[in-house]
Amino acid sequence: MNRLSPIDAAFLRMESKRTPMHVGAMMTFKLPADAPADFCQQLVQQMRSKPFMPDPFSSRLARGRFGRRLPAWEDSEVDMEYHLRHSALPFPGGEKELGVLVARMHSHPLDLSRPLWECHVIEGLEGNRFALYFKAHHCAIDGVGAMRMVQNWLSKDPNDRSGVGPWTVLERKRMTRAKPTLRERVSTPARSAAAQLRGLQDLVRNLAAMVQGDDSSVRLALKVPRSLFNQRISQQRRLGTQILSLKRLRAVAEAERVTVNDVLLAVVGGAFRRYLQAQDALPERGLIASVPMGLARADDTAGTAAVGFITPLGTELEDPAERLRWIHRVTTRGKRDLSSMPAAAQSQFALLGIAPLLIGQVTGVLPKLPPLFNCVVSNVVLSKDPMYLMGAELEAMYPVSFLFDGYALNVTLVGYRDGVAVGFLGCRDAIPSLQKLAIHSSEALAELEVAVGVAAPSPAAKPKPRPRKAPRKRAS
Amino acid sequence: MNRLSPIDAAFLRMESKRTPMHVGAMMTFKLPADAPADFCQQLVQQMRSKPFMPDPFSSRLARGRFGRRLPAWEDSEVDMEYHLRHSALPFPGGEKELGVLVARMHSHPLDLSRPLWECHVIEGLEGNRFALYFKAHHCAIDGVGAMRMVQNWLSKDPNDRSGVGPWTVLERKRMTRAKPTLRERVSTPARSAAAQLRGLQDLVRNLAAMVQGDDSSVRLALKVPRSLFNQRISQQRRLGTQILSLKRLRAVAEAERVTVNDVLLAVVGGAFRRYLQAQDALPERGLIASVPMGLARADDTAGTAAVGFITPLGTELEDPAERLRWIHRVTTRGKRDLSSMPAAAQSQFALLGIAPLLIGQVTGVLPKLPPLFNCVVSNVVLSKDPMYLMGAELEAMYPVSFLFDGYALNVTLVGYRDGVAVGFLGCRDAIPSLQKLAIHSSEALAELEVAVGVAAPSPAAKPKPRPRKAPRKRAS
Repeated sequence: MNRLSPIDAAFLRMESKRTPMHVGAMMTFKLPADAPADFCQQLVQQMRSKPFMPDPFSSRLARGRFGRRLPAWEDSEVDMEYHLRHSALPFPGGEKELGVLVARMHSHPLDLSRPLWECHVIEGLEGNRFALYFKAHHCAIDGVGAMRMVQNWLSKDPNDRSGVGPWTVLERKRMTRAKPTLRERVSTPARSAAAQLRGLQDLVRNLAAMVQGDDSSVRLALKVPRSLFNQRISQQRRLGTQILSLKRLRAVAEAERVTVNDVLLAVVGGAFRRYLQAQDALPERGLIASVPMGLARADDTAGTAAVGFITPLGTELEDPAERLRWIHRVTTRGKRDLSSMPAAAQSQFALLGIAPLLIGQVTGVLPKLPPLFNCVVSNVVLSKDPMYLMGAELEAMYPVSFLFDGYALNVTLVGYRDGVAVGFLGCRDAIPSLQKLAIHSSEALAELEVAVGVAAPSPAAKPKPRPRKAPRKRAS
Repeated sequence: MNRLSPIDAAFLRMESKRTPMHVGAMMTFKLPADAPADFCQQLVQQMRSKPFMPDPFSSRLARGRFGRRLPAWEDSEVDMEYHLRHSALPFPGGEKELGVLVARMHSHPLDLSRPLWECHVIEGLEGNRFALYFKAHHCAIDGVGAMRMVQNWLSKDPNDRSGVGPWTVLERKRMTRAKPTLRERVSTPARSAAAQLRGLQDLVRNLAAMVQGDDSSVRLALKVPRSLFNQRISQQRRLGTQILSLKRLRAVAEAERVTVNDVLLAVVGGAFRRYLQAQDALPERGLIASVPMGLARADDTAGTAAVGFITPLGTELEDPAERLRWIHRVTTRGKRDLSSMPAAAQSQFALLGIAPLLIGQVTGVLPKLPPLFNCVVSNVVLSKDPMYLMGAELEAMYPVSFLFDGYALNVTLVGYRDGVAVGFLGCRDAIPSLQKLAIHSSEALAELEVAVGVAAPSPAAKPKPRPRKAPRKRAS
């Protein structure tokens, strides 16, 4: 029996009917040109025949008296027919039908008495395509681990039709040890009180400096507005998706000498602004995102630190270019602040951000507290090269994350080849017409291109009537 | 606000992760010859456009402090896009894929914060067919009510393409008042202590007589063996289906001068015997079924009484004809006993059967108690005439019921036109290879036909090796 780490146990304790704590991903694939009619069936058979999930996914939570207080893994049979499922889309089998099906699947909690994962092969996607959706509990894997797992499933060789080569049983430790994840960085200091204390002292010193100036993340965090996105959530989810061209994002970034990340945040901010205006619910103060961010570290230790980074989205600014510049100013300053912080202090900083969510959700007070941020926007890169599954080319991947109570929307961005897949996961009841956010993100990019001068206003988009009662308020 | 009756509230309290208390049904339809490619889409649109569920399905459970102790209905918006769902079967779209999908859907609990129903239109069923699956919470409707609801949805006119005519909002009271259901018979006496007391006295007097003789149901109930079917259940379900020819069942019944019900019970017993032998788990004592049975009443009150009737299945008998005769003897005696019992005593008798299940499941001790019976086998008639939905002919209907903890299998029989649809609902983990039960029921009928002399042994079936260690024990 293998005890769960305290933070893994915390993610398990946070599970409730309204907040199942599983993460997932949806992937779409092109069928190979020579694919037989039963390609998906063959894929299902192939995947059922070999274990392909890393530890601890061949284990289940141990039953017994101490199960809830001191959860542990115990070995289990894996009923592959149960965990690996074959599904299909109804007519006409478009992205809409796929989004509806995956949102439904993602709304169902995992069966906590079995190994904590499910994987669905979904056929009937229009344009000779199929989809894959998997979900796994956050107490067993985190976002970075899930991304590595998917990378390990896929092959860069289109002629690799075996489908088996990459389906190896991975050591979870090996998988996450290479680059310590947020969780490890958070749980490691707990082992050493001395390091923790040192970290805290460093953190206090750093926070004092970080709080200076109007571009301070820490200051922003104290001014988070209440918004439509911050309310009690129900059990049900909706999913909206969009793909943005990396080339177009890069052109905007180069024109303004900012990062592609900054451009993406400005696009999300633009989409939020349009959406909230249409709902007549745009707060006067700008919305604030929490961005789990990988930082190249400047000091002693190697590796990547992931921190819930507080970033403005500029939703209070009408001019898209101005929004982008404001975001860039804050992220630049924030990255400098964080990378100059010693490792132990960074971990403390990460805990500082997560602890209220953990405690708030377990005690049920989270949706009643003022929001700590408005929305999580995460951003990862899957691969620059095309990837294949049994010869089928991966078209796009959208992570499907979880919601905290009081945080009814989550945005994920995944870089793959020449595009960035944008996935919006929202509470079905709190976020009406979620798919509009996906449409608005494409409009927001076009608007930004025009504003920074890399594209001429399109004849169709040009004479757009200005939104009603847009607050013309500058943030700096 | 409308309080739930005590028995409805009890069904709500019995809801748990492992024992969701919803009932459902699966129906298959033939597409009309002139059906357009988007027939199912049109059907979904049609159904979404009008309310078609009776009260209280436009209400939800009231939230608040007393919600759990004194549950009540409150008005609610019905999000038809959520409740009415469009789904599809993967290749090759056979009964197997349908069974897998419906079992999965049935394993998911209802969202208790919304109106307590879901309906799925399922396309992609081979042979130009589609399916409908619905589920509804047992605290809002019982089996009889659900059957009436389905009858109300369908039309006897193949040319009635409106699809709207039958989709009327029914008064729940009107629907169930015509013939009092088990629930009403059970809850009515609670209102009158005098009637209750009289009923109890009558019951004691009747029980004393009923316990005499080896064909006494009451005696049998004291000799229920433990079996594979009586164990702790998990969250997940499996579904197995089969259709038996009413003509063949009738021929057997006529040859032995017994009822079709008796023949059906003997078929179920034969299927159980084969299944348990293959699992090397056939108990020496015969398995006992609880059969909710409609009785034509002999005394003062009109209407139908439904009682959990204790019936042997003759699984200990090797000879199918002997099994049938034994079942017939007990059911004949039992019906006589029950119909001579006054109404109030019948209600007490019904409560006597249900109370331990209610109490046992709520307290969690149910799977630890000796079984009160081995399996529920219910038997209803839908219609003798063909029925249609927007011109699509109903092919078969299978109720999909719920399981109690410790009762891992449920059998339902539905008469429709010239067939009887047999549905086995089982716990995924307790009942391995559930579909074999469906296959065995067809074999058991063939075997019975030979044994009573209405069919010659088929060349293929004839030289069947006799089962290993079959206990040759007579029950009478």
